[in-house]
Amino acid sequence: MKIIIVGATGTMGQHLVSVLEKEHQVIRVASQGGDIQADITSTASIENMFKQAGEFDALISTAGPTFVGPWKKLDDTAFRSGVEGKMMGQINLVLIGQHYINPKGSFTLITGALTEEPQRNFANASAANGAVEGFVRGAAIELENGIRINAVSPTVIENSPQYFPYFPGEIPTTMAELEFAFRKSIFGAQTGQIIKTW
Amino acid sequence: MKIIIVGATGTMGQHLVSVLEKEHQVIRVASQGGDIQADITSTASIENMFKQAGEFDALISTAGPTFVGPWKKLDDTAFRSGVEGKMMGQINLVLIGQHYINPKGSFTLITGALTEEPQRNFANASAANGAVEGFVRGAAIELENGIRINAVSPTVIENSPQYFPYFPGEIPTTMAELEFAFRKSIFGAQTGQIIKTW
Repeated sequence: MKIIIVGATGTMGQHLVSVLEKEHQVIRVASQGGDIQADITSTASIENMFKQAGEFDALISTAGPTFVGPWKKLDDTAFRSGVEGKMMGQINLVLIGQHYINPKGSFTLITGALTEEPQRNFANASAANGAVEGFVRGAAIELENGIRINAVSPTVIENSPQYFPYFPGEIPTTMAELEFAFRKSIFGAQTGQIIKTW
Repeated sequence: MKIIIVGATGTMGQHLVSVLEKEHQVIRVASQGGDIQADITSTASIENMFKQAGEFDALISTAGPTFVGPWKKLDDTAFRSGVEGKMMGQINLVLIGQHYINPKGSFTLITGALTEEPQRNFANASAANGAVEGFVRGAAIELENGIRINAVSPTVIENSPQYFPYFPGEIPTTMAELEFAFRKSIFGAQTGQIIKTW
């Protein structure tokens, strides 16, 4: 299977590349480094990335910039970080990528527990996650040719301990749990699902 | 209680004005007509609206433009309809309005069943709804001075029969059910909740 991993150089992406490339052809996409560079906040850059990657069977995204910081600094401008990044960036990967993906292919986006379990400093991520989850449900009934779409929703990631203080009470998602959630989406048959590790 | 109703001239807004103005001071806000005109896709227009309205105790929003139409026409540009309208429009009502609302006041935004129960042609609304619901949860733990925030999530509205064909299987939300959901948010004590009529 040919799998595009967007966010391939991040903490989640690196792990997913390492386990999936043993069995599959992996195309690593990142803003810097990787096999193809792309800026997911630009539809032109996304289109160019798909042209370079060619036909594929699955796309995984772990790319999700959002504004993290004090509520008092969260104004319209700050909010756009998550709108353009984790929300529209991932949504455009699907809206554009549907024209390049093989029949019966799959898209798997990243959200997170913050949709339902808020934490201070992360209201922008809660909104972006919620948007992506709503989109996944709406897109699943529209995509044609057997193309599926799901989201993986982890808590704070085991390999990102610097974030642990911001997520009191959250049991970290292990790298294995994260990997298995993506495997369920890529190799399973469900669509329109939010696959939670919690 | 002084209540601002944004979207006051729409189907939902008209009903809420008619029942709430019997007992409360209601400020009707709409893009055209009403007591104050505002374009919720403009932060300057929202700011100006709050300056005109003055201090208030509750804000209700029923304003939610989104792209409704065939999936094949849903590109980044079309998607912005719901992003700027139902999503950022409502979010900015809170981010800006928090500086004008009285202590112990409340914000009540509008989402809808499409977040979890998608229908064809409405993926943009599913995403916008999901964003607003995530934001409501994230904002509820950040707002100070006892200010609360909730969303009301109806199905297709009883008084909008032109939409019934797009919502097969959805039992329409009656105007009374809609009103009671808003009453629970305005006059109750909960915060961070999605109040469903379904």
